[in-house]
Amino acid sequence: MKNVNASIITIGDELLIGQVVDTNGPWISQQLNNTGIAVTRRVAVGDGYHEIWRALDKESEDADIILITGGLGPTSDDITKPVLCDYFGGKMVVNEDALNNVRYLFEQVFKRPVSAVNLLQAEVPDVCDVIQNKRGSAPGMIFHKGEKLYISMPGVPYEMKGIMETSVIPMLQEKFELPAIVHRTILTAGIGESALAEVIKEFEDALPENIKLAYLPNYGMVRLRLSTSGFDKKLTEEVIDQYFRELKLLVKEYLVTDVDDSMPVVIGKMLKAKNSTVSTAESCTGGYISHLITLVPGSSGYYAGSIISYSFDVKETLLGVDKNTLTTYGAVSEQTVTEMLKGLLEKLDTDYGIAVSGIMGPDGGTVDKPVGTVWMAVGNKGNFQTQKINLRFNRERNIEVTGMMALNFLRKFILAN
Amino acid sequence: MKNVNASIITIGDELLIGQVVDTNGPWISQQLNNTGIAVTRRVAVGDGYHEIWRALDKESEDADIILITGGLGPTSDDITKPVLCDYFGGKMVVNEDALNNVRYLFEQVFKRPVSAVNLLQAEVPDVCDVIQNKRGSAPGMIFHKGEKLYISMPGVPYEMKGIMETSVIPMLQEKFELPAIVHRTILTAGIGESALAEVIKEFEDALPENIKLAYLPNYGMVRLRLSTSGFDKKLTEEVIDQYFRELKLLVKEYLVTDVDDSMPVVIGKMLKAKNSTVSTAESCTGGYISHLITLVPGSSGYYAGSIISYSFDVKETLLGVDKNTLTTYGAVSEQTVTEMLKGLLEKLDTDYGIAVSGIMGPDGGTVDKPVGTVWMAVGNKGNFQTQKINLRFNRERNIEVTGMMALNFLRKFILAN
Repeated sequence: MKNVNASIITIGDELLIGQVVDTNGPWISQQLNNTGIAVTRRVAVGDGYHEIWRALDKESEDADIILITGGLGPTSDDITKPVLCDYFGGKMVVNEDALNNVRYLFEQVFKRPVSAVNLLQAEVPDVCDVIQNKRGSAPGMIFHKGEKLYISMPGVPYEMKGIMETSVIPMLQEKFELPAIVHRTILTAGIGESALAEVIKEFEDALPENIKLAYLPNYGMVRLRLSTSGFDKKLTEEVIDQYFRELKLLVKEYLVTDVDDSMPVVIGKMLKAKNSTVSTAESCTGGYISHLITLVPGSSGYYAGSIISYSFDVKETLLGVDKNTLTTYGAVSEQTVTEMLKGLLEKLDTDYGIAVSGIMGPDGGTVDKPVGTVWMAVGNKGNFQTQKINLRFNRERNIEVTGMMALNFLRKFILAN
Repeated sequence: MKNVNASIITIGDELLIGQVVDTNGPWISQQLNNTGIAVTRRVAVGDGYHEIWRALDKESEDADIILITGGLGPTSDDITKPVLCDYFGGKMVVNEDALNNVRYLFEQVFKRPVSAVNLLQAEVPDVCDVIQNKRGSAPGMIFHKGEKLYISMPGVPYEMKGIMETSVIPMLQEKFELPAIVHRTILTAGIGESALAEVIKEFEDALPENIKLAYLPNYGMVRLRLSTSGFDKKLTEEVIDQYFRELKLLVKEYLVTDVDDSMPVVIGKMLKAKNSTVSTAESCTGGYISHLITLVPGSSGYYAGSIISYSFDVKETLLGVDKNTLTTYGAVSEQTVTEMLKGLLEKLDTDYGIAVSGIMGPDGGTVDKPVGTVWMAVGNKGNFQTQKINLRFNRERNIEVTGMMALNFLRKFILAN
């Protein structure tokens, strides 16, 4: 049994001018990893004959499987198919199944007349095995060269995913004897990457070669991931779980969750378990905290709503903040967020609440309260806590980090109250 | 004068297991394109010594400039720096400026003790030019080999962007004689991509070879971009502006803006010009519209706030929606959004308002109102309009598209009222 490696080539000019973020590559990587195939490289190249040819050459050097997406459309800038035809020394022939599929799609699904250009989609090199595409007109193609396997798929994510799930993954599982790949992930908060590294230094140094530890910092939180693989799945899981338990104990103080959940999902699970509700009063974050909470399916079960008080007026009329508080201490103050929280809990009548007010920039800072100054309060009707943070990013990132820090502040409050 | 080509290498195991979508690559591609440098390949590889070395070899074959991001963190899985050191035949030395920067960051900004691991960040190969990183502890590095230029930057987007903007782009502009790349962009709304293509077919067919037209559909709107390049900037601009005027006339009916502004920026400019204010009442979008509006610097000048009414209760108590309306017509109905809008304009006392209620999925749909059903209302105190839309995406994208469509609905109302 040997490890099987894959490389992914995505084709399209739009990838290289930065117009489009490639999500096919990460999705294919996930699927292959879960199947036990390691992806060792991902390459993006433009719609050029020479560029595609060179990419096929280069990726053939190390990988066992080369997956190719994009450039199979009906217009003249899509040239992946002729390049593959030449590269593998074939000539174009009509594939009857693909032709029937194109006719069916246009006549029965799109209800549009099928054009000569569309019918060309049914032509394939005579040196490939055809994978039918039930979701579109461009078929998938499999080529062989020596021991290497080449799989070409359309770039439209919905079509590519259909071909991967129904044809490519089952075919790879049958063809190769694949190991189980196992990951275990912890989300930590309240400690930086390098400080965390010191806490777990001895653990990390003692890890066996085949267990990898990765640090994934984001929004002031750090995700730690242990990964390994083995042909005996049960044994592999037992081994990694032993290290995972040790790791969890070491970072206990900073542990947010030991499953691969996001912060809003963690909070949602906590609130559901307590049968409790939450609401938010946002000034500087302008609805971003509310957006994070409501991205989670089912959040209507514990989230009541929010008062976004961008203006002084709304802070007074809707949240009942005292005019004197605003003029004496300012909108960005411990006093104001405390009154915002009280008003919120009264008006929306939820078990928990978050109130945030700050200066996100680029303007609005003063000597006392520079851009990046944020006050936040979390609490319930009996109890509350406040904290001040100082950020130093641009406006967008200040909003994002404030949102995540406020949610973590709430999480800790719920744990304790 | 010759064209300058670049290749981008992004480093990190997390890219290859599909845990993270690479946004650095597209961002760098955009910046280089705008500077007159064509990106010909982008490659992602894992944190492996051999893999990084091989990627450096392969990308050196064709590109003039090789940009590298990632793998510069303080932890032991970050090995880009030692690989670069060996690849370019150097040895590690402490860089005094980088050391001072690390000390300054920890003592003055993070207010945490600086550890031995952090201080290691100041070590660099003695064969590189150091680029100081004002936003983090890992410095950027520039290496030369023959005619080729190698630029290594941290993978944290905020730090990489700082280094690109303040150091790398100016350095490349000085080092190479680059053509001016000129773009002209139109944002259209209310017409699909293929219908738009038919409207401008003759124009598109008559475009000279060196002027490219791109269709960039997003959120139900289509951006059209004309691009060209030339070493004589003034002449290049004159030529493209002639075609741009023609294009604007052709799509006049659907034109949102002829500068490269986002929808929230367009609306902000309109409101400022009218000295008017706006507020939002959001149910299904859960604060996303408010977030889009408040991402714009200076939005506090025209944005008062929002009532996010996720629960029935909040719709009643804060927005004054009649209980009978909710029970008779449901929360997702023309009647409910109309009452939400009226309540909003009364409570927040703004000139304009948006109210939105819908079903974003994956659950909550019924036969009459399937997932993706959204009602929205826009108006002022004297007048209002409603519309119903039907979406068919996942939850996240349904929220995004609803937000953008609501803003476009508001834009058209402001234009007419």
